Amino acid sequence: MTTTIGIDVGGTKVQAVVLDGTEVRADARVETPEHGGPDAVVAAIADCVEQLGGVKHIDGVGLGAPGVVDRHTGEVLRAPNLPGFDAPVPLGAMVADAVGVKRVAVANDVSVGTLAEHELGAGRGCDDLLGVFVGTGVGGGLVLRGKPYHGSTGAAGEIGHVAIRDGGRACGCGGVGHLEAYAGRASLEREARRRHADGEPTLLVELAGDGRMKSSVWRKAVEAGDTMALSLIDDAVAALGEALASATNLLDLSMVVLGGGLADKLGPGFAGRVEEATRHLLFVPGSPLRVVPAALGDLGGAMGAALIARR
Amino acid sequence: MTTTIGIDVGGTKVQAVVLDGTEVRADARVETPEHGGPDAVVAAIADCVEQLGGVKHIDGVGLGAPGVVDRHTGEVLRAPNLPGFDAPVPLGAMVADAVGVKRVAVANDVSVGTLAEHELGAGRGCDDLLGVFVGTGVGGGLVLRGKPYHGSTGAAGEIGHVAIRDGGRACGCGGVGHLEAYAGRASLEREARRRHADGEPTLLVELAGDGRMKSSVWRKAVEAGDTMALSLIDDAVAALGEALASATNLLDLSMVVLGGGLADKLGPGFAGRVEEATRHLLFVPGSPLRVVPAALGDLGGAMGAALIARR
Repeated sequence: MTTTIGIDVGGTKVQAVVLDGTEVRADARVETPEHGGPDAVVAAIADCVEQLGGVKHIDGVGLGAPGVVDRHTGEVLRAPNLPGFDAPVPLGAMVADAVGVKRVAVANDVSVGTLAEHELGAGRGCDDLLGVFVGTGVGGGLVLRGKPYHGSTGAAGEIGHVAIRDGGRACGCGGVGHLEAYAGRASLEREARRRHADGEPTLLVELAGDGRMKSSVWRKAVEAGDTMALSLIDDAVAALGEALASATNLLDLSMVVLGGGLADKLGPGFAGRVEEATRHLLFVPGSPLRVVPAALGDLGGAMGAALIARR
Repeated sequence: MTTTIGIDVGGTKVQAVVLDGTEVRADARVETPEHGGPDAVVAAIADCVEQLGGVKHIDGVGLGAPGVVDRHTGEVLRAPNLPGFDAPVPLGAMVADAVGVKRVAVANDVSVGTLAEHELGAGRGCDDLLGVFVGTGVGGGLVLRGKPYHGSTGAAGEIGHVAIRDGGRACGCGGVGHLEAYAGRASLEREARRRHADGEPTLLVELAGDGRMKSSVWRKAVEAGDTMALSLIDDAVAALGEALASATNLLDLSMVVLGGGLADKLGPGFAGRVEEATRHLLFVPGSPLRVVPAALGDLGGAMGAALIARR
């Protein structure tokens, strides 16, 4: 049985696991440093690996990073949410040095999260699937013909930047009418605060105050029947339905796995509603498509990173 | 060197070639019978094969059909444009019997057309590409990681039924705002006749009269600077740009090959305009994406059918 360490480097935390076959044997997390650049991030990663007992009986180390990654060299080309990652960083080589292994496999965090759902989670047995992660933004990863699909430059899976409204809401990327502008938490918060400033009352602002409008705030407001929260989540469901239907019409997917902080907090009913919104827009009426909640939660990314260390 | 026969069964004609390595050694075509059901279509196919000299020195026979195909059994499940193909037809077995071979490989016509452009045409050397064929409707085929991608039920590639306008024009499939409703010739004609009936003058109706508004009519009207034709083709270019940008953001394609009767007639400048409309909507600014005209013209489908006979 292969035993590997997987590390999911996020904007707020570094999460690591020891994966033994299909079982998580141990896990550890530390906060992502806000300052100190790549060296500080590498030190945090090494700290996490240390907490897991180091690399002595480990067959490989893999890492998922939130940005554009060159999987062949292990470089992170751009990761706006990590300090000092605005120019290419040889993260794989740096972590290999710091923890004492020859090589660390590096890939995009959402793509490894999708791989984990495919091999160990909700997507087992399904050869053509799209993983959609609804959190601060909306990310996606593809498994096609049973293998991760990365595209011509490694940037495949950007379902969040598929256009669904002509002349719609502005997206954080500079585009217009993208899915992320309707379903990503940062965009949802922007829209809620705009409407609130225009005089529309909402529990969302009461609960969040001046702080970040977290996924738990959205859940509470929805559960309390807050009109604005319900209407914005309705729009998000419709937007996801349109984007997933177009993706399914193009790729003839059999499954979409829906995860990420906001989707997780809204519960499994959210995936059901998105499936309903998708289904009536499908070109092939008998399409086997299902939209299912991700099964691995917070550890999915680290588990996927452990999987790429086996290759 | 392998020598195979490929047959492209279309709604108006059956086109066949003998492909020897990368060279077309002979070609033949007959009209698709309008009556007589599958038996008449099979007889027309056999006639075409006869014209090519029969199957004596041939290593295999392949066939592309305009509809939903089960590649494993050679059945055509549904082909609205062929007479009597509203229920499943075992076309592969019927043609094998009629021409005297053990097996005929069958696939969707647009998917084999894309394969031909990938192996012998404009897409050579490109591993991740989308073929888009703009004719009566808008069809598409995918080659991913260097191999045809068919999806979970064999229906992948339906770029014509990707939604690009919320609440936009009705599509022939019953959907709303699909690419085909803006760029397919049948939809373009519907829109042109509607505007003309509302009092807007156009060369399109003068040239076509009560007949079908063929691709050559569109070319002539565009070349003459007809206001309505220019405006509708502008809309088609914009619609293609939006659909191709979303597909590229999802799949990180390096190439789109643009073919089909209408695209061919509008000339290579059409692909250039579509590339421009696509490029400014891409999520990855340095994307290598190019939109290039198909290189194989009318014979592409039959050449692709000959290629699947080698497998």
